[in-house]
Parts: sequence; structure tokens; C-alpha cells
Amino acid sequence: MTRTMSYRQPSVGIVGAGQLARMMAQAAIPLDIRVVLLAASADDGAARVTPDVVVGAPDDAHALRELASQVDVITFDHELVDPALLAELEQEGVIVWPSSGSMALAQDKRRQRSELGALGLPVPAFANVDSVDDAQAFGEAYGWPIVLKASRGGYDGRGVWVLRDADEASRVVEGALASGTVLLAEEFLALDLECAMLLARRPNGEIAMYPPIETVQADGICRELRVPADLDPVLVTQAESVARQIAEHAGIVGIMAIEFFVSKGRLYVNELAPRPHNSGHWSIEGAITSQFEQHLRAVLDWPLGDTSTTSDHVVTVNLLGPGDGIDPRSNLAQALGVEGVHPHFYGKEARPGRKIGHVTATGRDASEVETRARSAHHLLVGEKGKG
Amino acid sequence: MTRTMSYRQPSVGIVGAGQLARMMAQAAIPLDIRVVLLAASADDGAARVTPDVVVGAPDDAHALRELASQVDVITFDHELVDPALLAELEQEGVIVWPSSGSMALAQDKRRQRSELGALGLPVPAFANVDSVDDAQAFGEAYGWPIVLKASRGGYDGRGVWVLRDADEASRVVEGALASGTVLLAEEFLALDLECAMLLARRPNGEIAMYPPIETVQADGICRELRVPADLDPVLVTQAESVARQIAEHAGIVGIMAIEFFVSKGRLYVNELAPRPHNSGHWSIEGAITSQFEQHLRAVLDWPLGDTSTTSDHVVTVNLLGPGDGIDPRSNLAQALGVEGVHPHFYGKEARPGRKIGHVTATGRDASEVETRARSAHHLLVGEKGKG
Repeated sequence: MTRTMSYRQPSVGIVGAGQLARMMAQAAIPLDIRVVLLAASADDGAARVTPDVVVGAPDDAHALRELASQVDVITFDHELVDPALLAELEQEGVIVWPSSGSMALAQDKRRQRSELGALGLPVPAFANVDSVDDAQAFGEAYGWPIVLKASRGGYDGRGVWVLRDADEASRVVEGALASGTVLLAEEFLALDLECAMLLARRPNGEIAMYPPIETVQADGICRELRVPADLDPVLVTQAESVARQIAEHAGIVGIMAIEFFVSKGRLYVNELAPRPHNSGHWSIEGAITSQFEQHLRAVLDWPLGDTSTTSDHVVTVNLLGPGDGIDPRSNLAQALGVEGVHPHFYGKEARPGRKIGHVTATGRDASEVETRARSAHHLLVGEKGKG
Repeated sequence: MTRTMSYRQPSVGIVGAGQLARMMAQAAIPLDIRVVLLAASADDGAARVTPDVVVGAPDDAHALRELASQVDVITFDHELVDPALLAELEQEGVIVWPSSGSMALAQDKRRQRSELGALGLPVPAFANVDSVDDAQAFGEAYGWPIVLKASRGGYDGRGVWVLRDADEASRVVEGALASGTVLLAEEFLALDLECAMLLARRPNGEIAMYPPIETVQADGICRELRVPADLDPVLVTQAESVARQIAEHAGIVGIMAIEFFVSKGRLYVNELAPRPHNSGHWSIEGAITSQFEQHLRAVLDWPLGDTSTTSDHVVTVNLLGPGDGIDPRSNLAQALGVEGVHPHFYGKEARPGRKIGHVTATGRDASEVETRARSAHHLLVGEKGKG
């Protein structure tokens, strides 16, 4: 007779079933963590590779409670969840990481700007915009153009407008207010570069910080990650300190990504995300502990892993759905002919402009690594390689 | 209206749902390869983390055809499949890699020894054993002890007996023959060390070879992998050449592992496996392309990946189910406190002596890497760390 040794499998519920959930589910396999998804559709990228799926909307209290009943802790693929609903679950004893409070802060750019400003952290000049007058006054005070942002829900360039003058401000602000969008204005910064800090924090306050990441953007969408960022050591130290203060202020548990602007040699906080983030995808092959494993460790209150890089240089190129009719996944075999590249697909249909995957390369020489990652990217999207 | 770009998802059917299928399924996620398992039980390690599972026996023709109908190519988690049945599928047009012919050779140690010997490859002296007399004659010719092996189905020390003298030979051979076991005898070699070569081969004959692996064994079970093996360069060259010849002779497609003995400075072929193998588990973190991704690439006839190591030294320690009542998975949080270690669990109950997982560490200094991997292993199995 075989004696059964007692073992209780740890389990994590993920609200949402996009690429972040998909990569978390992949990271959960070796650690034997059971992942249960709350997926809007059984066809979502993560739901297609995970056996345990609850189908339901992320703001459906019944579906969330069903998810909670199956797992040790609830975490997130996205921020489209009502913090009040999460707070209810917390009061019922459900462990939710990041907490309802962290999620509320992450969802509200007005609140972020004012709270981070009040902490003395470097943020761009900003003002709430409740009328055309507010926007025009801000433009007159700080000079045109100004940046107008939706306080909630923007991503990949959506919910962000650059307003060149008072006329454009009048037109755009009027339209946005009419559709019920809560707005804020920020000074327009001439950018030296954009970068991001990625960290993980445990419930006990322990923090693990990854090296700084350069995020190369076009049209408000991140196109490339370069690790380590080519950043003045003074700015690295400042970015680490700011990231740590934000994580502590937000009481984050799990991964947090903080995106920064560098303008005229100075650092400004741009956005924050309370979860694994596009700017951390390089870590799958590029760091000893990937952001996905690290997030699972943190929300399960396990020791955080080593955030060192696995090689001197890491380059990740995002794959956007191309404008023509070829799905990049159809070109996979060609791209795999490039030595030492790691394509990742998210199981999503290749609509034009949509982030559908990424490619990572690692190595000793920055430009050689960049060439390989870009060559594979070009082959996937059907362009001629530059390499 | 959204235009749908045409894309046909590649798919691989795996016969068996143990740890090899589990790690293949994990490697399939980023490449968006659909994996369908033929699992003996829905509770098998791989079936627990994969949505597409056909439940059935590996030698059930109906179940195999059901699997074949869903995928582009069939491959294997184990060798417990009748080659004649696979040959039937091949004749029906099903792509099966490794082929029925490769599987037949891999399953039959008598045939392996005679064919590899006939090719002039270094194998231990051997003879078929169909009677007690055969074994005793072999012992007298080559000296006691001798090694008796079942021609089929042995693994992890099962199906292997060291016979000290003619009396023991008589007793063991009689018992084995009575139970219908087909036997062969081999000379007993005093071992300097054991090592393995891991390679992948495409249908077009392209081969990618991994660096040599030292396999540290105890009681016929592999306990540790060390990469690279501390092997005379002359032996490395010979091992590569022998591995290549075996792969070509067997017409292998996919990963093949060839285990070697080194005795008095000479190399001997021990066993071969026509699939991802325990001796290649280090490659998940230790090589640019893991053996699991490489196997998928090969059976889909895609370009093979870079087999270079990601760091100077890699050590993998196998986790065996311990004798006492504690499941090593219960000690995971403690083990994760060791910096930079990668535990992998197979989703299997921790019966004593059973391989239930492994731990890998990588780094620049061999003994420091070994210390970390062993410390995590000790913490998992509940022993005091030696580190």
C-alpha cells in the first residue's frame, strides 16, 4: 500500500486571462502552483493554455467570489476591477494582492499625481481639468503644447492627447468631458529617453528591485526594451529610491512597474502599474527570476527571487499586429532561424497595432543582441531584416 | 469590422502525460503551439496543467488515432508504445517523430548493442542471455561480477542486476526467464564517471549538439547533472561523434540522449533515449534553447535553436520522494530562500524513491553553483543543508 504524503497545493486566482495571466500560468507550472483564471472568454490567450477557467466578467461579484472560493489569493492580469468590490472581498477574508487600496491608486491618475507630488517625488507639473478653461489656463501657465490625459483606463497611447494650442484644447476637452472622461493636464516634456523600474514587494515589506530598463516608445506604444538602461548612475539611484517610495506608499504586494521620463537630465514619474508589465517581459530569459515567477512568489508571501540579469545585455522587441494580412505567427519558422532568439506569442489574433507578442535576445554585446532581436522581429512581421 | 488574418496554429500530440510532456507543454506556450496529450489518467502531471487531454492507454489504437486526428505530429513522453502500431499510423499518413523505427531500436537493448557494435561504436562486451548457462559462460569469459539487463522497459535501476557469481546468476536468471523477461549480459565496468550527450535532429538531418553532461548516479538513479562535464577533450570529441552516428543510424527526429560510461579513460555507450531526457533538464535555465523547446522545433521541422549554455556552470539535482512523510513541495518556500535556484516539480505524488522534480542553479563558479543547488535540494527533502 502506498502511503500518501500530505500536501496542500498552493493556488492563485487571476482576474483576467490576457498575456500577463498566460505568462504567469506558464511560470506557475514548475512551482506546482494551481492557477485558476477568471476569463471574460474561454478563448482568451491564457484560457487557451490553462485547464482551470471560470468564465465571467472581472466586475461580476458572483464570478469573483467563485474564483475566490477556489484559491489562496487573488491577483490580476489588468486593472479593470472595481476597488470597492475588492474591498468587500477583503472584508470577507479573501486575500487580494495587490490590495483594493493599491488598485484604487493605480487606477486614478489624478490621485497618483497629487499623492506622489505631496510625497515630494518628481512628477511633471499637472492640474485637474474639469473645464476648457482649466486646460487653457494650464497651457498659458506652462506653455503649449500640453498633455491631456484621461485619469482612468488609458494604455498604449489611448487616453492621451497632445494639445498644441488653446483651440485644440477647447475642441478635445469639450469632447472628452461630454463623454464623461475625467481629465488632467501635464506639462509637455522634451524627452531624453523613457525608462522603467520593476520591483517586487512582499506583504512583510521586503523589496526586490530589477535593473533599470530603457523603454523605446513610438506613438505612445512601447516598441523595445533595453536592459540595462543607458542611464546616469545618479539617476539610477534616484529611480530606485523613487520606485521604493511609491511601492511603500501604495502598499504594493507583487510586481510593480514604474515608468519614468528623463527630460533634460531630470527624472519624472510617468505611470505606474501594480502587476507584471510589458516593461518586464525581458526578465523571462534576461533575469534569474522572471517577473511572472516573482509576482507569484510575492502574492503567495514566499521569498523573492534573484533579480540579477542572466547576461550583460537584453533586448526585447514588441510585436504589434501588422497592417497587412499576414499573422506574424505564420512566420515563426523563419524567425527561429535567427540564432538565440526567444519569440513569445500571446495567443491573440493579430489585429493591426495590437500587442500580440515579443521577441527577446540576450548576450554580451549590446548591438549584436539588438541585431538578432530586430532581425527576428522583422522576419515575424514580414519586413526585410535590417541585420 | 475586424479583418481576421489567416493563421493555422501548429499542434503536437504527446503520447503520455508525465513530466516530459509537462515540460514540453510549458515550452509550447510562448511559441503558441497547441499541445494535445494522450494521458493514461486525467490526474497525470502534464494533464493537470494542459487543457487538451485525450484520456486513454498509450497502446490503444483507437485513442492514438483520436490523438492523431487532432494534431500535425505525434511525439512521446515515454517509450511504452508498440512500434508496430506506430508503423500502422505512419502508413495511414500520420507524422510520428521519433519514427516507429527509432522507437523500436530504443526499446530493444539487445538490438541496440548488436547494431551499435556492428557499426564499430564503443559498447561494453555483451551477450544475449537465454539460459543460466549463457550467463555463467559470459561470467567465466569476462570475469565476475557481470551486469544482467532486461532488454526492454528498465529505468532508474529497475531491470538491471549486478551478479557477483555463478550462483547468483543462476538464481536471478532463472527467476527473470520464468517471468518472461528477455535478457542480456554486459561486462561490469569500473567507472571513472558517467556522462551523457544530448542532441536534436531534424527530418532533414540537421543536428544540434549540447555540451557534454556529467551524470552523477547512485543505486542506478541519476542524482545530479553537472554541465559542462569534466571530460578530456578527446573523449568529448569522441562522444560527439558517437552520438551523431547513433542519431543518424536510428534516424532520430527530436531530442536524443545517449548515456555513456567512462571506464579507465575509455568511453562506452550505455543507454539511449529517443526523447527529452532527465539528463537534459539542466537546459531549461542552463541553455539558450531548452531540450523541450528543441524537441518541439525538431518534430515540427523548424530550425533548431542555439545549444550554448547561459552560464559557465550549471548544476541540476534530482528530487526523489523521501522515505519520511513530508512531501518536498511543502518545503518550497524555504527552498526559495536560497538565492538563484529553480525548483521544478512534476505534479507527482512524492512516493519514496520516485523522481518528483529537480532543482537547477547556474553561475560562474562550479562549487558555488553546486552549493546553492544542493542547499535548495536539502531544504526540499527536509535534510539539513550541507552548504
